[in-house]
Formats: sequence, C-alpha cells, structure tokens
Amino acid sequence: MLQERTLFVLVIGTTDVSLIPGITIAGATPELTMFTPAADAEFLVNGRCQVINGVPITPDGIPSPTIISRASLNLTGIPSLVVNGGTRVKPIGIPFIEVGGEPGKDIRQGALDKEVVLRVRENAERLGRQLSRGFDTLIIGESIPAGTTTALSTLLALGYNALGKVSSASPNNPVNIKESVVKEALTNLPEDRIERLSKVSDPMIITASALAEGFENKVVLAGGTQMAAVAAVIKEFSPGKMKDLSIWTTKWISQDKSSDIMGLTSEVGVKVEVSELDFSRSKVEGLKAYERGYVKEGVGAGGLSLLAMKMGFTKEEVVREVEREYEEARNEKI
Amino acid sequence: MLQERTLFVLVIGTTDVSLIPGITIAGATPELTMFTPAADAEFLVNGRCQVINGVPITPDGIPSPTIISRASLNLTGIPSLVVNGGTRVKPIGIPFIEVGGEPGKDIRQGALDKEVVLRVRENAERLGRQLSRGFDTLIIGESIPAGTTTALSTLLALGYNALGKVSSASPNNPVNIKESVVKEALTNLPEDRIERLSKVSDPMIITASALAEGFENKVVLAGGTQMAAVAAVIKEFSPGKMKDLSIWTTKWISQDKSSDIMGLTSEVGVKVEVSELDFSRSKVEGLKAYERGYVKEGVGAGGLSLLAMKMGFTKEEVVREVEREYEEARNEKI
Repeated sequence: MLQERTLFVLVIGTTDVSLIPGITIAGATPELTMFTPAADAEFLVNGRCQVINGVPITPDGIPSPTIISRASLNLTGIPSLVVNGGTRVKPIGIPFIEVGGEPGKDIRQGALDKEVVLRVRENAERLGRQLSRGFDTLIIGESIPAGTTTALSTLLALGYNALGKVSSASPNNPVNIKESVVKEALTNLPEDRIERLSKVSDPMIITASALAEGFENKVVLAGGTQMAAVAAVIKEFSPGKMKDLSIWTTKWISQDKSSDIMGLTSEVGVKVEVSELDFSRSKVEGLKAYERGYVKEGVGAGGLSLLAMKMGFTKEEVVREVEREYEEARNEKI
Repeated sequence: MLQERTLFVLVIGTTDVSLIPGITIAGATPELTMFTPAADAEFLVNGRCQVINGVPITPDGIPSPTIISRASLNLTGIPSLVVNGGTRVKPIGIPFIEVGGEPGKDIRQGALDKEVVLRVRENAERLGRQLSRGFDTLIIGESIPAGTTTALSTLLALGYNALGKVSSASPNNPVNIKESVVKEALTNLPEDRIERLSKVSDPMIITASALAEGFENKVVLAGGTQMAAVAAVIKEFSPGKMKDLSIWTTKWISQDKSSDIMGLTSEVGVKVEVSELDFSRSKVEGLKAYERGYVKEGVGAGGLSLLAMKMGFTKEEVVREVEREYEEARNEKI
C-alpha cells in the first residue's frame, strides 16, 4: 500500500483593494497590508520574517494565523511550498514559486490583465500537474488582505447569491464598505468568463483555482469564504474536479454570524469540514482573541490544524504547539 | 513498504563567462547563451519554448539535451521542478522557484556578491529540507552555458587538481581560453571559503550544492564535470552528505578524451554511474552528433536516461522516445 503523501501550498497575493481604508485589518495601516502575505509566508517557513522587522503579531498581541499553520506543519511533518500568485512585496528569506503573476489592482479599475490571468492559469495548472506526480493530497492555503472583498465580487460575477455571506478578519465585518466597492466593480461586466474574472478577482483566486484544477488527486482548499470563491472558479472551468474537492476551515468561520460559509458552499456544491481548534482555555490572550472573532482563518490554519487532528494529535496538543510557536516568536521580538 | 518517490529539479543559471567569445557553443552567439537555460527549462516542462522562437535545436539539427531529459521524464513519470539559481533571462511559460539568486558576473571581476551567495545557500537549503519531507531521492540537473569554466575555477579554488579535466559541449574543448580566463580569476583569492566561491563560481553551483545539502535523503547530481564542482562544494560545507551522494552522467562524458570525470570524482570522493544511452544507430543525424562529441550532457540527460533504464526501460525504448520528442519539436518548428 502506498503511504499517503500530502503537500501544503500557500498561495500569496495582494490586491490594491486592501489599500481602501477600513476594508481590512490584516495590516497595521492600509499600506502595510502589502507586506502581510510575504511576512506570513516567511514566518510559515522560517519562524521569522525578513520583509518586516519583528513577527506577525499585532501590537495588541494578536498573532497572524500563520502561527497556527506553522505549528500544525511542525506536528504533521508534511512539506510546504509557497506560490507567489502576484504580490507588491515578495518574500526575501524563503524559496517561492513564480507562476508569472502580478499584484491585483483595485477591482473598480480592473484587477488584472487578461493575458496575465491566462498565463498564470496555464503555469499554475502545470505546477499542479507536476505536483500530482509526487503527492496524493494537495492542501492549498492563502494569504491576501482584503481577499474576502474580491471573493465577494468573484462569487457575484459568477452568479452566486453571495451578498452578506463573506467573512472578515475583523470581529466587525465592514459589510457596507465591501459591498459599495463590489457594487462599483460589478458595473459593465464583460461577457467572457476570463475577462470577468480578470476584472473582479485577485491573484490568489486565479492561482489557487488553476493549481487545484491541474492537480490530479485530492485537493483541500484550506480557508474561509475566500475558498468558496476559489471553488466557484474551479467549478466554472473544471466541473469534473469538484468530486475531489473539499474546503477545510476553522470553527471561527463556520460559527461566524456575519457570514455564511455553509450557505455559500452548498450553493457552489463543495463539501466543508471544520477544525475544532479552540483557544478559549489558552493562557495566551492574543490567541483568546480568536474566540472573540479576531482573524478567524488564513494561511491554511483551519485545514492544517484539522490535518494534525486527523493524524492523531489532540486539540490540546495542537494548542500547546501553537502557544510554543507564539512564545518563541515573542521572545525573538524582544 | 513505501513506494520510492523521486523528484527531478533542474537548476538554471547564467554566468557572464559565457559572453567570452569561443568559450561555449551552448547558444548561436555569445549573447544568445543567456536564453539557453530558460529555453531548456521551458522545453523540459512544456515541450516548447517561449523565451526564444522555435525549439532548442541548432540550425544543423543538433538538439539540446533537454530533449533527452523530457523524453526520460515522459517514460519515468517522475515530477520535475525548475529552480532559478540566477539568470539574466528568466523563463516565461513555466512555473519556477526563486531562491533569491542573481545572474553570475564574469569570474575575472567576481561572480557574485557574498550576501547573495549566503541568501541563496540559506533559501536553497530550506527548499531541500522541505522537499525531503516528500521525496526519497532528489535528482539535480543543470543548465548554465560556460558552466565547465566556472566548474574548473571552483575546483581549483577549493584545491583540487582539476586542470585539463573539465569537459565541454564542443567536440573541440577550448581548453586554452578556459584556462586563461580561470587563471586570471584565481589571482588574489580571498581566504574565506564563501568569499572564494562568490568570486569564482556560478549561480548553478551555489544553488545545486545548497539544495543537495538541505535534502535529507539520497541525492543524485545528474551532469558531467560541472557536478564534480557541485560535489566539491557539498564536501566543503557538509562532508557528512557525501555518503548519500552520487553523480550520474552520460557515456559521452565518461569516454571524453579531453576531460577526466573519473579522475575528478575520485579526488572529490563521489561515486559515478554512467548511462549507456547511445545514438550511434539513431535515424536522426542531430542525435548521432552526440556520438561525435557534440553536447555530451546537460539538463540532467545522463541521470534521467539512466533512471529510465533502472526503472526497466530498454536503451532502445529511451532512444525511441527521444526521437519522438525530437520529431515533435521539429514539426512544431516548421
């Protein structure tokens, strides 16, 4: 019997939508959101960041979900690779895969050129095909600030009933800002599906969907409502792939009152599994903030912690490893 | 029992040494040698090139060894990835991994900055470590025009008796040009080993050696005398790795009278295995040129064809698949 081999791929991207004030908290200022994906990727691989000084923890002590993901990779021992879907700030301190992508522009002016989208789709599909020669399961995570807004516009552009259903890294989902930006982006939508996606989506959605389409075995989309948009794109271009596809997310997403991942995924037609990772009894205040609706998901945190539990680690063991990574990161900071 | 999983990684690089007239034939003009590694990589993955028009076959009909490597990958079904060690011209039509490298400058003026070498070593080692979580064997190939000259300077700088022992893609090894360039490069060598390598080596040697050092299982260096230089660097920094290391090459290299891979590798202390791939009875004139000393090796051709034979394909089956790839490429050209 073959040993099952699982690979984690983190797809990073930026969209200039994250520069719109108030739309995301994934960065201390709108400009700093451009550093978040590269910093997440660097921390995931190295346990420290080079594009920013310090560690991916807010001044209030709330950590990026990359800490959960790194802890889960430590436990499971599965390999990981980073794919740059298109970012204004690229990682420095880690190897990463280029697929010919570019940073996403503001969706109100058109996110990406059609040629870029076609090139990235081709390259990412090829990468997926190569990786399926070596791995039985591909878990795809994401880091892209304001990605729920571009997920919303993507889902609406593909005809889904997504209003009021996408999540947020903030306990106060800025629904009004998001919806007014998306409304403007959705005027004069082109007929052609690729042009439509080029206009309203983001580099992560384009890259992650094509990577999944190319991978010939089981694919797990590890993330929140953004992954419903990725699944919707996969269904659009490779409906046969849906049978091998699931979304694994956190309970902070599945229980979020401001969004509806279950409604979205049942409309798209993709299975969801939920990681019961829980920080309510953690001794770390910054982790407890997740229980109050901060962050919720990202960098594949839900999927990777669920994988660790499926491999036999208890919820407590995962929490303990996350706390260990958190303390190590804080000490490095000081 | 685990199924053995093997990955091929092609490391591409450029060195400005290839701009010196007469030093290499891996490109129609010195300037065009800068396109060769990207074109080799694109053909390997896609069966066609995008950085150049057409296919990697000379006007005389002699193909790049990437045709042998692609044919062998078709037969073996193993996955492949491309790592950009540092190139003036990057691939367009394929995914590839960045490790923070830069193109190599002329070794007479110093090939690379020390910081670049340190960064690439760190990133490539990390990549190797990640890949060893998923694969049992890593086969590393190379494409870098004028790479035998930088291999010579690297071996000499590390104290090996390498004069007259490195090979060439030409049937008339331009030994005098190579040795006069290397002699100039070796004046005023710094004491520090990393500074020494930074001055006289190339992005492929730096990247491939660090990748191998990071990979925790079996490593095959698939190439000619350049791989003796890679092995020498590995021995310098990770002597414990030597027991997991071999070089797999072609019989065109092992039988080359103008070089001495057996002498070099026995001095370095690395095992060599030889692919008996033979084109003397091929119906393709361009392939028969290999039997007259043209090309000889590159893009992992020796190692990948040997792998195919170890997996049970006959020499004739490999030749037939190479001929098929060749004809397909030629037809695409017309």
